[in-house]
Amino acid sequence: MKNRNFITTQDFTRDELERLIARAQELKKWGSRIGPLAGRSVALVFLNPSLRTRATMELAVAALGGTAVTMDVGSDVWTLEHREDAVMNAGKTEHVKDAVRVLSRVVDAIAVRAFAGLENLEDDLTDPVISAFARYAQVPVLNMESALYHPMQGMADLMTIVERRGTAEGVKVALTWAPHPKALPTAVANSFLLAATRLGAEVTIAAPSEYPLPEPVMRLAGENPGRVRVTNRQEEALTGAQVVCAKSWGSLVCYGRPEVEAMVRGKYADWIVDEKKMALAPDAFFLHCLPVRRNVEVADAVLDGPRSAVYDEAENRLHVQTAILEAIL
Amino acid sequence: MKNRNFITTQDFTRDELERLIARAQELKKWGSRIGPLAGRSVALVFLNPSLRTRATMELAVAALGGTAVTMDVGSDVWTLEHREDAVMNAGKTEHVKDAVRVLSRVVDAIAVRAFAGLENLEDDLTDPVISAFARYAQVPVLNMESALYHPMQGMADLMTIVERRGTAEGVKVALTWAPHPKALPTAVANSFLLAATRLGAEVTIAAPSEYPLPEPVMRLAGENPGRVRVTNRQEEALTGAQVVCAKSWGSLVCYGRPEVEAMVRGKYADWIVDEKKMALAPDAFFLHCLPVRRNVEVADAVLDGPRSAVYDEAENRLHVQTAILEAIL
Amino acid sequence: MKNRNFITTQDFTRDELERLIARAQELKKWGSRIGPLAGRSVALVFLNPSLRTRATMELAVAALGGTAVTMDVGSDVWTLEHREDAVMNAGKTEHVKDAVRVLSRVVDAIAVRAFAGLENLEDDLTDPVISAFARYAQVPVLNMESALYHPMQGMADLMTIVERRGTAEGVKVALTWAPHPKALPTAVANSFLLAATRLGAEVTIAAPSEYPLPEPVMRLAGENPGRVRVTNRQEEALTGAQVVCAKSWGSLVCYGRPEVEAMVRGKYADWIVDEKKMALAPDAFFLHCLPVRRNVEVADAVLDGPRSAVYDEAENRLHVQTAILEAIL
Repeated sequence: MKNRNFITTQDFTRDELERLIARAQELKKWGSRIGPLAGRSVALVFLNPSLRTRATMELAVAALGGTAVTMDVGSDVWTLEHREDAVMNAGKTEHVKDAVRVLSRVVDAIAVRAFAGLENLEDDLTDPVISAFARYAQVPVLNMESALYHPMQGMADLMTIVERRGTAEGVKVALTWAPHPKALPTAVANSFLLAATRLGAEVTIAAPSEYPLPEPVMRLAGENPGRVRVTNRQEEALTGAQVVCAKSWGSLVCYGRPEVEAMVRGKYADWIVDEKKMALAPDAFFLHCLPVRRNVEVADAVLDGPRSAVYDEAENRLHVQTAILEAIL
Repeated sequence: MKNRNFITTQDFTRDELERLIARAQELKKWGSRIGPLAGRSVALVFLNPSLRTRATMELAVAALGGTAVTMDVGSDVWTLEHREDAVMNAGKTEHVKDAVRVLSRVVDAIAVRAFAGLENLEDDLTDPVISAFARYAQVPVLNMESALYHPMQGMADLMTIVERRGTAEGVKVALTWAPHPKALPTAVANSFLLAATRLGAEVTIAAPSEYPLPEPVMRLAGENPGRVRVTNRQEEALTGAQVVCAKSWGSLVCYGRPEVEAMVRGKYADWIVDEKKMALAPDAFFLHCLPVRRNVEVADAVLDGPRSAVYDEAENRLHVQTAILEAIL
Repeated sequence: MKNRNFITTQDFTRDELERLIARAQELKKWGSRIGPLAGRSVALVFLNPSLRTRATMELAVAALGGTAVTMDVGSDVWTLEHREDAVMNAGKTEHVKDAVRVLSRVVDAIAVRAFAGLENLEDDLTDPVISAFARYAQVPVLNMESALYHPMQGMADLMTIVERRGTAEGVKVALTWAPHPKALPTAVANSFLLAATRLGAEVTIAAPSEYPLPEPVMRLAGENPGRVRVTNRQEEALTGAQVVCAKSWGSLVCYGRPEVEAMVRGKYADWIVDEKKMALAPDAFFLHCLPVRRNVEVADAVLDGPRSAVYDEAENRLHVQTAILEAIL
């Protein structure tokens, strides 16, 4: 896997993803061998804020003996032009072409976080920032959450499933939409769906009708070995599930219209995942990527209960990221 | 001392504190042995800004061969819920329970800075943030200044006294309130008092009557081996002192009422520590934790004079922190 | 060169600068020997934002096995008093004297970025912040761009010239002013001029008459071994040049009056460096320090063309900085 980008799990075969998870499990158990990244470096470029991802990426790089250079810019601070042939006489201070080519000269990989803008769906579906980074970079580019994907989270989720079920093959997974005070991007749900189906899981997505996942993502998931079903009835998805994964996202139907979206979202407060609902899936364990709005998205009793795997899942971020860096660099 | 929190010097015996200082002196002289923290990591979580503390903590972790992960959040940026059972449908984005449990999975210790809010005394006296971190953490928690305590500063102060007097036992210390353009927390003064009395010093606190230290802290100091006296007359405290430590703090009498407090504070501009006052303590050296408002809190002639130990004191922050990390991890 | 400051290339002899560049070339080719900075540390103090400089400085320190402590303050956040005898009862929270003395105790070198204020020319010509750091520091101070100088950029520029021409001696260099949406400091142009003439290059500066470089800098350049000519006609400077370096800077004639300056600057949009102009210098390669306003300062065809050396130049920042740190520490 040397010298490949890590933009979405779809770019890797099932066998490659499984080898990464197996390696992450070894790393979790034994730690990394001494210094495969010694003398090498990774730029961590954050166009959106991050605590968990930054911390675990810095730790992953350090675990391999490398140097992480964190660039905590915001999309406001570092205004990157990405149009070819632009006459740069306005607000944008640097062309992404120059920024990425320079970084490519001094580091061994570039990891990027650039959230969905949530204003224009068509635009977000092109995943504009990470695509521009990948286009110009001369070193591997890693996705720390883009407009469309959060594949490191997806890998941590799948590692947690493999840890608890031995395999993801044929495992019945319920991915349920959850209420939230604000409209969130779909990237986490997208990557969960893609990683799970890539590894052969049978995923049922439960969401209100105004909350589909992006059509291109659904199409990719449909081409993966696993199975995908969609329902508007949360109970149906949960009944008999072996894994319950909750996540909130904003409505694609009223993208870029936050007031309308908030009204629509307000109708579905009863989609909270609580113990009564978890009782429909007596063998399931529970996943959520965190941070979580307790008692809005998910009830305390579920998060703090014996079937919660959310802290294992968070810890696994570190291990899969270490495995991915090791594989790619 | 393995696996203990470092929240206040009161949690450690006099013997333990003395061993830490002795070890800090060795570290200052010889440097750290190679890599006791190799492959291990410490999260430095700043809910308030810091330069000196962040730099010296990063250096302390590096000196031991570990990896520091600095999280420069602000209390505004990272809005942590700490009430149990909260329904998180408002502004707070993460429960401290989740944040701390996740960090506990990926780092070997968590150091936290969370200043006093200075709005509600009762609230600040519970030391709410560091207490929540300690409650939920599964790894040692270190205090880089909380609402009530700044024990690393206290330890650096005491290390400086031990360096210059051989011991703190029986040393006559004047802790004097000083003027300042704004109301500051009491944490530094509290920890100085507790560390000094824990190690047997005889401390006289001089402060205007509106500027007592918190009653629970005074009670703890009273239970320590050293002696505590309080006076409203600065000259009385300074006369014959062997150590003069100056620090400003806000009035507990008008806590949360900044305009009133500013008027009260305005009456005491003549509490500045100058050479005339230092002449009352001809054998004393001078301590201040820095940053210092020159010629407001303390006159240039004192800070830059031969009896100033303020830069030794600042340097000793690095050495005591290294010793504490080494002892606890 | 041990224990020297690196404030401007003028403080180093031509022989010393040439040895630094030769060493940077070795470092570029072979990497650094193991750990000459092991157990040592460098504070990187940013009073102005930086991405490229911060990243390459952190990488340079890491390449030598040292620990970089980055202090991303802004001139607003960390308000440093620098007047002697100041009564600090207003907004400034710390005296530069104290900040620098403390840093001197805990790190092995202090690198500083503090841009020109662009309000008062006389003030900026004293290079107030870096001068104060150098005055109080007890360890070497390195300039990561001050009001007057950006010597690490100048060294990277000259390293690129030496790489491509074998020497800077007698090389014909055109330093041309370029249009830009805002008034920029002169530091990069100043240091380019000084480094190039120090190493014996023949520099022709082309700039509109309102855009001279600071008189004291011109005087220093005149004392260097190389030659300096000034012209208001861009074509004249470019014709027959072996190196073309483009850079924008603000007018010294209307310093501190941004509206007037913007009107003056507006007259010179045709100073953009494009292929037609580069045709006047058929043997030249092209330099720009980046970031660059594409199609305002320089045309895409030049930046992306075969004669562009801008990415080599950016990469060389890393290598010269590593060589400088190695020489000084």
